[in-house]
Amino acid sequence: MTTGYLWHPLYGWNDTGSGSLTPADPAVGLQPVGHHFAHPDNKRRMHELVEVSGLLDQLHRVPARPAKRAEILRVHTEEHHDRIVAESALPKGGDAGDGVSPFGKGGYEIAALAAGGALAMVDAVVRGEVDNGFALVNPCGHHAVPETGMGFCVFNNVAVAVRHAQEVLGVERIAVVDWDVHHGNGTQAVFWEDPRVLTVSMHQDRLYPPRGGTVGERGGGAGLYTNLNVPRPPGTGDAGYVDAMDAVIVPALRAFQPDLVVVACGFDPSYFDPLAHTMVSAAGFATLTERVMEAAAELCDGRLAMVQEGGYSIHYVAICGAITIATLAGVEPIADPYLALLADVYGIHALEEHQLASRKAAEVLVADIPGR
Amino acid sequence: MTTGYLWHPLYGWNDTGSGSLTPADPAVGLQPVGHHFAHPDNKRRMHELVEVSGLLDQLHRVPARPAKRAEILRVHTEEHHDRIVAESALPKGGDAGDGVSPFGKGGYEIAALAAGGALAMVDAVVRGEVDNGFALVNPCGHHAVPETGMGFCVFNNVAVAVRHAQEVLGVERIAVVDWDVHHGNGTQAVFWEDPRVLTVSMHQDRLYPPRGGTVGERGGGAGLYTNLNVPRPPGTGDAGYVDAMDAVIVPALRAFQPDLVVVACGFDPSYFDPLAHTMVSAAGFATLTERVMEAAAELCDGRLAMVQEGGYSIHYVAICGAITIATLAGVEPIADPYLALLADVYGIHALEEHQLASRKAAEVLVADIPGR
Amino acid sequence: MTTGYLWHPLYGWNDTGSGSLTPADPAVGLQPVGHHFAHPDNKRRMHELVEVSGLLDQLHRVPARPAKRAEILRVHTEEHHDRIVAESALPKGGDAGDGVSPFGKGGYEIAALAAGGALAMVDAVVRGEVDNGFALVNPCGHHAVPETGMGFCVFNNVAVAVRHAQEVLGVERIAVVDWDVHHGNGTQAVFWEDPRVLTVSMHQDRLYPPRGGTVGERGGGAGLYTNLNVPRPPGTGDAGYVDAMDAVIVPALRAFQPDLVVVACGFDPSYFDPLAHTMVSAAGFATLTERVMEAAAELCDGRLAMVQEGGYSIHYVAICGAITIATLAGVEPIADPYLALLADVYGIHALEEHQLASRKAAEVLVADIPGR
Amino acid sequence: MTTGYLWHPLYGWNDTGSGSLTPADPAVGLQPVGHHFAHPDNKRRMHELVEVSGLLDQLHRVPARPAKRAEILRVHTEEHHDRIVAESALPKGGDAGDGVSPFGKGGYEIAALAAGGALAMVDAVVRGEVDNGFALVNPCGHHAVPETGMGFCVFNNVAVAVRHAQEVLGVERIAVVDWDVHHGNGTQAVFWEDPRVLTVSMHQDRLYPPRGGTVGERGGGAGLYTNLNVPRPPGTGDAGYVDAMDAVIVPALRAFQPDLVVVACGFDPSYFDPLAHTMVSAAGFATLTERVMEAAAELCDGRLAMVQEGGYSIHYVAICGAITIATLAGVEPIADPYLALLADVYGIHALEEHQLASRKAAEVLVADIPGR
Ligand SMILES: [Zn+2]
Ligand SMILES: [Zn+2]
Ligand SMILES: [Zn+2]
Ligand SMILES: [Zn+2]
Repeated sequence: MTTGYLWHPLYGWNDTGSGSLTPADPAVGLQPVGHHFAHPDNKRRMHELVEVSGLLDQLHRVPARPAKRAEILRVHTEEHHDRIVAESALPKGGDAGDGVSPFGKGGYEIAALAAGGALAMVDAVVRGEVDNGFALVNPCGHHAVPETGMGFCVFNNVAVAVRHAQEVLGVERIAVVDWDVHHGNGTQAVFWEDPRVLTVSMHQDRLYPPRGGTVGERGGGAGLYTNLNVPRPPGTGDAGYVDAMDAVIVPALRAFQPDLVVVACGFDPSYFDPLAHTMVSAAGFATLTERVMEAAAELCDGRLAMVQEGGYSIHYVAICGAITIATLAGVEPIADPYLALLADVYGIHALEEHQLASRKAAEVLVADIPGR
Repeated sequence: MTTGYLWHPLYGWNDTGSGSLTPADPAVGLQPVGHHFAHPDNKRRMHELVEVSGLLDQLHRVPARPAKRAEILRVHTEEHHDRIVAESALPKGGDAGDGVSPFGKGGYEIAALAAGGALAMVDAVVRGEVDNGFALVNPCGHHAVPETGMGFCVFNNVAVAVRHAQEVLGVERIAVVDWDVHHGNGTQAVFWEDPRVLTVSMHQDRLYPPRGGTVGERGGGAGLYTNLNVPRPPGTGDAGYVDAMDAVIVPALRAFQPDLVVVACGFDPSYFDPLAHTMVSAAGFATLTERVMEAAAELCDGRLAMVQEGGYSIHYVAICGAITIATLAGVEPIADPYLALLADVYGIHALEEHQLASRKAAEVLVADIPGR
Repeated sequence: MTTGYLWHPLYGWNDTGSGSLTPADPAVGLQPVGHHFAHPDNKRRMHELVEVSGLLDQLHRVPARPAKRAEILRVHTEEHHDRIVAESALPKGGDAGDGVSPFGKGGYEIAALAAGGALAMVDAVVRGEVDNGFALVNPCGHHAVPETGMGFCVFNNVAVAVRHAQEVLGVERIAVVDWDVHHGNGTQAVFWEDPRVLTVSMHQDRLYPPRGGTVGERGGGAGLYTNLNVPRPPGTGDAGYVDAMDAVIVPALRAFQPDLVVVACGFDPSYFDPLAHTMVSAAGFATLTERVMEAAAELCDGRLAMVQEGGYSIHYVAICGAITIATLAGVEPIADPYLALLADVYGIHALEEHQLASRKAAEVLVADIPGR
Repeated sequence: MTTGYLWHPLYGWNDTGSGSLTPADPAVGLQPVGHHFAHPDNKRRMHELVEVSGLLDQLHRVPARPAKRAEILRVHTEEHHDRIVAESALPKGGDAGDGVSPFGKGGYEIAALAAGGALAMVDAVVRGEVDNGFALVNPCGHHAVPETGMGFCVFNNVAVAVRHAQEVLGVERIAVVDWDVHHGNGTQAVFWEDPRVLTVSMHQDRLYPPRGGTVGERGGGAGLYTNLNVPRPPGTGDAGYVDAMDAVIVPALRAFQPDLVVVACGFDPSYFDPLAHTMVSAAGFATLTERVMEAAAELCDGRLAMVQEGGYSIHYVAICGAITIATLAGVEPIADPYLALLADVYGIHALEEHQLASRKAAEVLVADIPGR
């Protein structure tokens, strides 16, 4: 099997500034801090581990390239695109739109390279240059809606890639599985009325964006029933995630019958994430990956492109990523150095009764998903 | 009201090295990282916010001093004490005992100053120099058992302070309330058979140390029923913490009738903590503080000493701490700059059905706590 | 002897952003970096060493307070002041004026506190509350000219303090000795025509600002001959600095006969500074301090206020500062932990022939300095 | 022209700990600091700039591989080698030998990879796989003597590579030109009596190691006159370095007539280096490179391998390196973003009279260098 892999060092140069979320402001008690939650070191370290561990030697490098203006405009408004271009030229850069998503001078070029990286990987998978692949892009994309960036996302990388697959590569049916711990509101919004794209988001229940991502949000117009949210309560671990994957997401994929599966792969459900409260281990991510691979093998000749979304543990994202990518490539992953610590933690391995309600609420909606 | 406050800049010099938990080790995929989970910047920044926000002007500075050998030996074995002294003289320092608790050259002096800081604050409260007080010490202490340090703790600061209160100040009955997100196993162990000390630990269920901290651990010998564990399931927020405080901890204090209350105050139950999965906000810590203050006022003329334990969010510990200390001092706290973000998060404000089981299991044990 | 000392933790919160000098800009090869040259950690660490080493106990804390608008306007234009206020309210803050002097939100408040800190120390010295004193302020000030900030400086702290001494405290003759490694162009400009203020700057020859700081710049109008520049060639060490102090600066003070001496005390001539090429050791700074103290004792009852300017070694500024302040206070300084490393370095201890030319060029100008 | 380039991400994982030079030690005033002078980020950032700037696309990647025990033992004693192996297995690692050269767990593997990287590049150049090349290795090597590491160096990378060239590749005459700002004492020691290796070191006069590196050190035994030191006084800039290259080093190469030139390329003579006091700009390094290339072209078919030694400016090493490597590859380098700042600095561009003495003292020794 040939597994593609994409990283560009410019992703590690995304300038998230000297604040925590919002810029530092002594008047409200926020002193400067070296590492914004979305500091790119998290992802750079993941790439380095992929290389140092020898995994890189078993992967096929797919080169990144910037998404062009027209490619970004398939998803975003001109106003949003051009505002990012303009702010990107300022000495201190700008913000993707919500005041917690800073970028520095040249941030446009990095964001365009992230969108283009997702696009390039989908392109390589669809054209058969690789069997599947992982695009380790930065910044993330799944919160960006057509009119604005938000939640650390500038452009919706996955959406740009999916539109490319539809419009340039002629792929008819595409499923996006988003397991970032936050709701994939941007991707949901872009494809809300598109019956050719199934968007599934599994995330911590009502974490971010506030109040959204409920099971009641199911797509609209021609796209009715092609959006599915699978909220997981805070405190859910591997068992509760895999359970929802088996009971809801894989059946949804079977129902929809995609020609291509794209995973919006956040590692912020991880055990050590400072922005979320779920307890997924590296082994958990490996299992989720296996399940999606099996579904893709069954449904669409294994065509699977994974695209990096969030993940904020400077300690654990690298480990989770290296193990996930090895799983995707069918090679032996490194051992999780934190495994001993996680072995006996309550809640990580067992399915809890109270986690079933939201799973069941999502499960019953699968029947409505339109097939081919 | 006079509220004591203690900090020493040497606490900010505790050298946690260049690993994440264990030292970096490329062979297992762990590259060096600038911030060990227990890096002291978390606490230094809290002190700075206390000063910059003006709160410091309303507090009474209690000076720190090192705990003496004999004071530490009230709690710890000579072997443990002397091993720390010896490793502290090495160029690269040593480890408190479990390989995840590094300290640098001079680490003994800092650890002794942390134990002495807790002791000094308890001393000031008992002698009436202050009405209550907060000792912002580092490193933490509540995991340290007589024979060894562990879990980032070198000496058990609170236990050293409690022993001082008993043996030097003649305080008869002391209650320790530990709301650090991890089980206060060390404090439990030190006072396991001591009927004059009630140890209560509220923590994330079976997080750390592995497998411990269950409701079944209730003290032994003469100290039977004077240890109480109140595990909270992962995903619990403000509501579930305050509920357990009201239903279990305050009643336990009333049952025991202490002459002094000591809070082992970790801020690692906080919403942004990378090592735990509970969702307590700064407002939640303020409410917990108010409840303990009310109990202390009712039971022991308000004699309350809070001692810093863990807390690993470089972004939020400072905020939680400043608001907690202001509450303790009865002055208007700063506004939580993250409040808007937390306002609508699911699970933070509402008590969940599944959180009741472990609360109830602890609640029924209160009746056994021996009174005066 | 009573020696004043001033520091405020807000100085440590000055937000220098994520660039090196200019903001990061991938297009020209500048990736983000956690530590701008002027990152405030250099100074915060100095304060901490003052406290941890026990020196603080022998000093008299002088509280900082913000300089008021009217106090700043004694030196700066309304346009400059108000531009800083306006940029300080922006989410990402602004720049003092030259693109290499960034500040964050609230940067105005910090800059005003730096100017006010210098003013407060001069006030305490002149009023006799302390015999002499050291104001550890941040950001630095000596490059700021009336119309703009530059070179990491927002307001000219020393100039604001001197104007206060003249206009509020009625001090008639004031000498400013600036041994920051860069030319004190701002202070020179403010007092260019003021015969009551002698400005002396000893600095690396033509380092920054470009091309300025030559011996030919001697004041103008009524202030002719009351400005004196003492450039030192790159590579000069302790010997060459002390030589110029003895041969030029002390004689200049004797000629001018001040009522007050203010030292603009940069530690960027230090051996480890990344922005300069001189080789002054902590012992060298101590000797310079002694010489100025002796001159002040002889000329103006010892009235001496030292105000922190630059200093960019995160490793050595703290050491140099602690030893300088101890010298000022007449107490035994700590030993320089880098001393063994510096003991045999060529150029640090011996006066070199080629260093004499510029010293002599300055020396001959002393005769023109007008006395009382 | 084909130019080789070598980097391995493991070089960026060299664990220099939490001290400045020596480990932190509060008792002597040294608090922990995130960046040891020799923190590998300096070199990692250089590699990233090589990639981000597009230069990498014009280079031929030469893979790194660890030097084998036997290869290291061509230069070092078994005692030294085996001590590093042993300390490398300790949880906190060890030190190369002088207490300022820390490494972490696994430090042996990184050091062996650095020696092997130098060796691999020399191998590729000699075998003609590339015309010339740059090995960006870490840690540095030129201070390591047979019996011990020192000065941040564990093994003498260049010496290991030269011995390989002699013993495996059969290269007869090799010249090592070392322009690191510190004396190449280790390389000098290894080849002291070897007439087949000319070792030339240009460095800041008596900086490190203390007292060494004088013109009087000229080799011994059969190697008499095949060692040449060219000390430059502190404060020397581009002009003084290029002058010495033209007047001494190139003539020395012509006299010796090597079959291969190896440059021990430190960027710590750079303008912004915190450990030295010379003022070489990126343009200066480019000129030095051109001169050595011309000499190699004239003398040995251009066979030139450059091996990274020191360089401690986190801001400028990357720029100097990218410009040097582009020069080596004959492609247009990026513009120096700091150029405007350096354009008018005194001492950087002009040859100073006092710099001539030490150059002339070295110059006269060239005549003694034995030719082929
Ligand atoms: Zn996310
Ligand atoms: Zn804890
Ligand atoms: Zn300066
Ligand atoms: Zn060097």
